[in-house]
Amino acid sequence: VSADLVAGLRALVAEEARVSTSPSVLDHHGRDLSYHPPSLPDVVVFPVSTEEVSAVLRFANEHGVPVVPFGAGSSVEGHVIPVRGGISLDLTRMDRILAVYPEDFTAVVQPGVMRNALNRRVNGEGLFFSVDPGADASLGGMAATNASGTTAVRYGVMRDQVLGLEVVLASGEVIRTGGRALKSSAGYGLTHLFVGSEGTLGVITELTVRLRGIPEHTVAARAAFPTVEAACRTAAVLVAAGVSVSRVELLDAATVRAVNRYEETSYADAPTLFLEFGGTRASVDADLAFAQEVAAAEGCPALEHEVEAEARNRLWQARHNVAFAIMATAPGKRLMTTDVCVPLSQMPDAIHRIRVVLDAQRLESSINGHVGDGNYHVAFMVDPGSPEEVAAAVALNELIVEDALARGGTCSGEHGIGLGKIRYLEREHGDALPLMRALKHAADPNGILNPGKILAG
Amino acid sequence: VSADLVAGLRALVAEEARVSTSPSVLDHHGRDLSYHPPSLPDVVVFPVSTEEVSAVLRFANEHGVPVVPFGAGSSVEGHVIPVRGGISLDLTRMDRILAVYPEDFTAVVQPGVMRNALNRRVNGEGLFFSVDPGADASLGGMAATNASGTTAVRYGVMRDQVLGLEVVLASGEVIRTGGRALKSSAGYGLTHLFVGSEGTLGVITELTVRLRGIPEHTVAARAAFPTVEAACRTAAVLVAAGVSVSRVELLDAATVRAVNRYEETSYADAPTLFLEFGGTRASVDADLAFAQEVAAAEGCPALEHEVEAEARNRLWQARHNVAFAIMATAPGKRLMTTDVCVPLSQMPDAIHRIRVVLDAQRLESSINGHVGDGNYHVAFMVDPGSPEEVAAAVALNELIVEDALARGGTCSGEHGIGLGKIRYLEREHGDALPLMRALKHAADPNGILNPGKILAG
Repeated sequence: VSADLVAGLRALVAEEARVSTSPSVLDHHGRDLSYHPPSLPDVVVFPVSTEEVSAVLRFANEHGVPVVPFGAGSSVEGHVIPVRGGISLDLTRMDRILAVYPEDFTAVVQPGVMRNALNRRVNGEGLFFSVDPGADASLGGMAATNASGTTAVRYGVMRDQVLGLEVVLASGEVIRTGGRALKSSAGYGLTHLFVGSEGTLGVITELTVRLRGIPEHTVAARAAFPTVEAACRTAAVLVAAGVSVSRVELLDAATVRAVNRYEETSYADAPTLFLEFGGTRASVDADLAFAQEVAAAEGCPALEHEVEAEARNRLWQARHNVAFAIMATAPGKRLMTTDVCVPLSQMPDAIHRIRVVLDAQRLESSINGHVGDGNYHVAFMVDPGSPEEVAAAVALNELIVEDALARGGTCSGEHGIGLGKIRYLEREHGDALPLMRALKHAADPNGILNPGKILAG
Repeated sequence: VSADLVAGLRALVAEEARVSTSPSVLDHHGRDLSYHPPSLPDVVVFPVSTEEVSAVLRFANEHGVPVVPFGAGSSVEGHVIPVRGGISLDLTRMDRILAVYPEDFTAVVQPGVMRNALNRRVNGEGLFFSVDPGADASLGGMAATNASGTTAVRYGVMRDQVLGLEVVLASGEVIRTGGRALKSSAGYGLTHLFVGSEGTLGVITELTVRLRGIPEHTVAARAAFPTVEAACRTAAVLVAAGVSVSRVELLDAATVRAVNRYEETSYADAPTLFLEFGGTRASVDADLAFAQEVAAAEGCPALEHEVEAEARNRLWQARHNVAFAIMATAPGKRLMTTDVCVPLSQMPDAIHRIRVVLDAQRLESSINGHVGDGNYHVAFMVDPGSPEEVAAAVALNELIVEDALARGGTCSGEHGIGLGKIRYLEREHGDALPLMRALKHAADPNGILNPGKILAG
């Protein structure tokens, strides 16, 4: 690492300690949660203001130094790994909630704000931030990958929640996109372009996000079915009827078994829907009765439901701990999670086909799906030190992606492209890549922003 | 008009008659529904396939001829007016519904398909296309302006419904964005960039759109309030509680009076909410009772509701005919509709302030608002032949926009920029215009696509 680089950066931030080359700091910023091999940045900068981010980018742009934005580090496709060294720009100290407008259903936050922290701040106002990817990710990172998770079926994905952004461009220029209104048709949808751009078009320094009212009444429910198909059909009927479903998650039978072992629960060994309903008390009760009928017609013996917050949390904890249940099967290995999204009607057959493959490989694994969206994941453990295991994992991922593309689906429902899906993006959107490259070049002519992600080369 | 241009275009389409310079055809393609002065194209081309669109664009790009996509012509900001002549590309003959996937809640359509035609096709499957801007617009045009309307409060705007596009770029290259899955994080959000780009970045030749299940039960309701504030507060409480509201429209007292005169109805002379609830029968009944309570607490004497389809349609007809009610006050003039969107809490005061101005000008006018979104319109009549009336209308529009921007709002909630809002876009997003220009240049280096719209110069 060049001493000039460090000295140059130290001249741009107020405290010397916020430019670090400490081995442990570099190491922390050289990896994410995935099996992708680590690669160290030359230096980590911890800006505390938009002005500092702007100064760092202007400097990096002039000197051709790569800049990789870093949030919670909970990415699973290698987005934050500095494959070409340079600066890891750690935004976690920009973690202030700048404003909450309860009557407008909006909040303005810095990118390092964690979603749980935002919820703690706004829950008291009867509001919540809807996107729940499981992990307690930073809002800047969630916007960068267009994250979603369990509640997308009702409230939409990250792109639907971000109303406006402050973004620092590669040149160091600061722009604002969108705004505080709940909708706008004022010019190009820049907000929607930066959301999902994985730090390759600009660095997000502020977000205006949509909040939702906490429904008057919430009920969690669990329903076991004879087949994955029956579970999926039930979900589709509920969504189509306009029922107030806020989450509908599918766990296949093998996943329920893993949960039972890990949580010491005794859920029926069958494909299971975990559901949540939210609305007025009377409407939720009515919808629950309707759901019971629909589920019964699909062979579900009983829809178990929980009204008390503690019992609801216990039920959702089981769902959220699926990853830990799989991790507990192979301590020391790393979790690999695939992520495809297919047209809804294709989901049962896709899951069935993959389960056959997994069983043939005797791979301890979970299949769980956001069944209102067609987005499903296979989670299993990989030893990153074993080339054979990594190769097998990559091959399995490829099989899942190819299957999804053949069904009219996409190679990423919510995790993004990062390093891990560049070649699948080429398969899926090869004809649009020249335009994506042209947009990238227009926004970042020197290619300093998170190079080697989304687009190869 | 150059004979070479016409001859060149006739060589590209299968039938000579689909390249027209007939005065009546030119005239039809030289105007929209707005007060903006007409400007004729040199020639109108009616392509019937993506290949023809591609050939026309390649030709136009080589010869530097402007191309203005044209759909239903129901734009209200001058989007389709060929201010620099050239080719009006009329897409109404590309009006096939290519596929409906009921189980996936999606349909694939050509850009000339009208939204009512799509609804007629899918209603029998228990599905509908949610975006309802009032007019029977083409889906290509609705995507181009990111249209929305009355149902956005529940289902979102056009950008939320378009899952994938086929787009012909200025070069004639054909690309596909997005796909058939309900969500994707695969690369840059090109779909969301083309939606709302008003024909300036590419020509949409195919759309994959989201469909929604027709709720099991639908009820329309009407509630009169002592003040606009009370009506807005009621709407906010209903939305926050998670009530199954699918439309919530505000008409101010003057608008209700205009409706009464036009429809010969006798609705109370007061600010009024028009509402729609959709869900299961029991949940809608429960929500209606809840809404009645909330409205009563805000001084609404009774929430009148209608269950039968015919009675519901009559109620919504009154709302939809607001524009005609205003038009009936000044035959021969043209309708002018403003379109701003403000943070929800700002809406009552914004409407109050504008009503005072309108009353002082003794202008027969309607204020109606999509009160779940903060998007409101002032509709009034203008004589396009009177420079004074046009100047006064422009001044009033400016006052409304400046007020909205001062409140943290946007200059366009759903009508787009077109010709009419270019300078307000500069006011609102001046700092982002260089990036918008760079993206425009990347997609359309010769500037042939709908020149003079969104961006000046």
